[in-house]
Amino acid sequence: MTDPFASTRRMFHIPDGVIYLDGNSLGPLPKAASARVAKTIEAEWGEMLIKGWNLAGWMDWPTRIGDRIGRLIGAAPGSVVMGDTLSIKVYQALASALELNPDRRVVLSDNGNFPTDLYMAQGLLTSLGKGYELKVVDPEDVEGSIDETVAAMMITEVDYRTGRLHDMKRLTQKAHSVGAIAIWDLAHSAGAIPVDLTGSDADFAVGCTYKYLNGGPGAPAFIYVAPKHADAVRPALSGWIGHESPFAFDLDYRPAKGVERMRVGTPPIVALAALDAALDAWDGVTMEAVRTRSIGLSERFIREVEARCPELELASPRDPQARGSQVSFRFHEGYAGMQALIAKGVIGDFRAPDIMRFGFTPLYLSEDDVVRAAEILGEIMRDRLWDTPEHKTRSKVT
Amino acid sequence: MTDPFASTRRMFHIPDGVIYLDGNSLGPLPKAASARVAKTIEAEWGEMLIKGWNLAGWMDWPTRIGDRIGRLIGAAPGSVVMGDTLSIKVYQALASALELNPDRRVVLSDNGNFPTDLYMAQGLLTSLGKGYELKVVDPEDVEGSIDETVAAMMITEVDYRTGRLHDMKRLTQKAHSVGAIAIWDLAHSAGAIPVDLTGSDADFAVGCTYKYLNGGPGAPAFIYVAPKHADAVRPALSGWIGHESPFAFDLDYRPAKGVERMRVGTPPIVALAALDAALDAWDGVTMEAVRTRSIGLSERFIREVEARCPELELASPRDPQARGSQVSFRFHEGYAGMQALIAKGVIGDFRAPDIMRFGFTPLYLSEDDVVRAAEILGEIMRDRLWDTPEHKTRSKVT
Repeated sequence: MTDPFASTRRMFHIPDGVIYLDGNSLGPLPKAASARVAKTIEAEWGEMLIKGWNLAGWMDWPTRIGDRIGRLIGAAPGSVVMGDTLSIKVYQALASALELNPDRRVVLSDNGNFPTDLYMAQGLLTSLGKGYELKVVDPEDVEGSIDETVAAMMITEVDYRTGRLHDMKRLTQKAHSVGAIAIWDLAHSAGAIPVDLTGSDADFAVGCTYKYLNGGPGAPAFIYVAPKHADAVRPALSGWIGHESPFAFDLDYRPAKGVERMRVGTPPIVALAALDAALDAWDGVTMEAVRTRSIGLSERFIREVEARCPELELASPRDPQARGSQVSFRFHEGYAGMQALIAKGVIGDFRAPDIMRFGFTPLYLSEDDVVRAAEILGEIMRDRLWDTPEHKTRSKVT
Repeated sequence: MTDPFASTRRMFHIPDGVIYLDGNSLGPLPKAASARVAKTIEAEWGEMLIKGWNLAGWMDWPTRIGDRIGRLIGAAPGSVVMGDTLSIKVYQALASALELNPDRRVVLSDNGNFPTDLYMAQGLLTSLGKGYELKVVDPEDVEGSIDETVAAMMITEVDYRTGRLHDMKRLTQKAHSVGAIAIWDLAHSAGAIPVDLTGSDADFAVGCTYKYLNGGPGAPAFIYVAPKHADAVRPALSGWIGHESPFAFDLDYRPAKGVERMRVGTPPIVALAALDAALDAWDGVTMEAVRTRSIGLSERFIREVEARCPELELASPRDPQARGSQVSFRFHEGYAGMQALIAKGVIGDFRAPDIMRFGFTPLYLSEDDVVRAAEILGEIMRDRLWDTPEHKTRSKVT
């Protein structure tokens, strides 16, 4: 049987001796990115100068690249646009959602959401005043907490710590049944699992591109607005590039048609060039094939680790259908354990207080990699290689 | 006499046959940028992977680079931070400013402000409700309109169309005398003219880096918060990277110390690498020397153009001390005139309805360039070379 991912694996640079299980935090370098960025810098910025906005089509990149991502998340062409960071996109989505439900005051989220989503909501709701409330429940209590007080439900589909997967379709349906708006954060979904925004009837979705989409450190984010809302929502962050006619330089804001109103400032062209190159790796694959392989890799990893490391406790759902494309284990010295593993070339990451986290990314990860990683983790646990002062010393960014 | 800018000129790539008078819109390519970006992509992202956040110091780039810009705008170390776009930074500054003046409801600006500043204010004030009002007056009426109803004055120092310069120190003083907060947009100031945020006692300042600072298309923006406010302001865009302890993953937001609370999402590392390289050109020059040369170049240009082109009317202040580092002329067929000029290798730009705009950037522009540009403009006017259907056809981005 031929390996459908043999050709994608060759598209990535993985340093010698490294097994990279942290593509859920920062995807590795797509080999094409450097040349693509150099072309944008030298042949476009360097030679076209200001004319690059027309000649190189820079101004259209946020929608063109948005459509490339749209294909991976079940979004219709013209419903996704790139720009800013995920935090900003969360703010945009929530601000617009609340205005679609002006008589309600509750934003529902859960404590498995990534903190920046909660922080951005806190910032927005404090600015709005007017009695708004952010209600943060346990993940398993989300469904039962959706009631007619809820203006917007704001949920990250895959828990960044455990990989636990929410049921997008069911929760969205429940939200709609009581008149609430559904906002989905796809940070650990886009490029990780099949997502069907259209079929799930999601109202808004946001995501970053530096994880499973391999766009590079701090790569631009995306936002999806359901076509039924796109011409109705008022952008709270009403910047000139989201204006109906940016180069008319009118004094008054008029939103652009559709999702383009969610554009804000001048698009980050150099960063978009890297992302555009990274997306080439997805051209020949389906998210269904990625999912099948991801489950195969993660199941094998769990089996191999559990056979070797009784100290570790699976923190992710055991049912592969109930988790995203990552596996986490709890270990009382998780930080030191991960440092020891990294020192041996197996890169995962640590999330407080005790989670060792591993991402599974079929585009560039083979079954051999996964087995070898488990073997090394087994040696570390068996020989207590984590138990050194060096491995226990925390760095600034973990 | 030696030319103090001979060495900086060699640091930029200007295509053969081009005289670039549009550095006030998009600065040209600093030769060092491509290699610097390639290093960040290949040696840092490619080899360090997630460890780049520590090993390459990525997480500190927004403050380190902020300090490099701070030196050019009279800001103390630790008072400027990079990220997002100028539009977002305007929103942040205004939202924070309004909370410093909770009992007032007027935001004062002028119709010479760049539209995105007004749009972002409109978006924010609509979200806030509560009777907020954006008062937009003529530029010459700003000073007289500063009264005790004004919560915040939000002004762009240099008019993007005419180059007219506001008096930062006087207006800020007037604002403070009635208890208003002063926000300055330095889009056409940073790297263009000497700016003294500290001496002017400005409360907030924001700016982009793709114009006079040559950071590349869509390069990250900056925000300055006066040290006296920095630990007091509440960030409306409260993202995880502006949290006191981002990697503690707390559920509640607590602002970071000082200006770092104005950071929002994950920093755009590839774009920051290009900007960092671009800033090297400023290391050996003072803004006073840049200003002296800029005035010399623009005065010469005005003289040469007016001697040749009676059709053109100076739209910029005639007094060089009253304008930034650009010169604009009105011409009834300004769009076609600029297209004809660009076709002959002299790149400026057009701003509706009738402005031909020229930026003066001593780092890479010589007096010979300026004289030659005026000669070519003179030929175009004399021979009516602008009067063709081709030059009159508008492109999407002008």
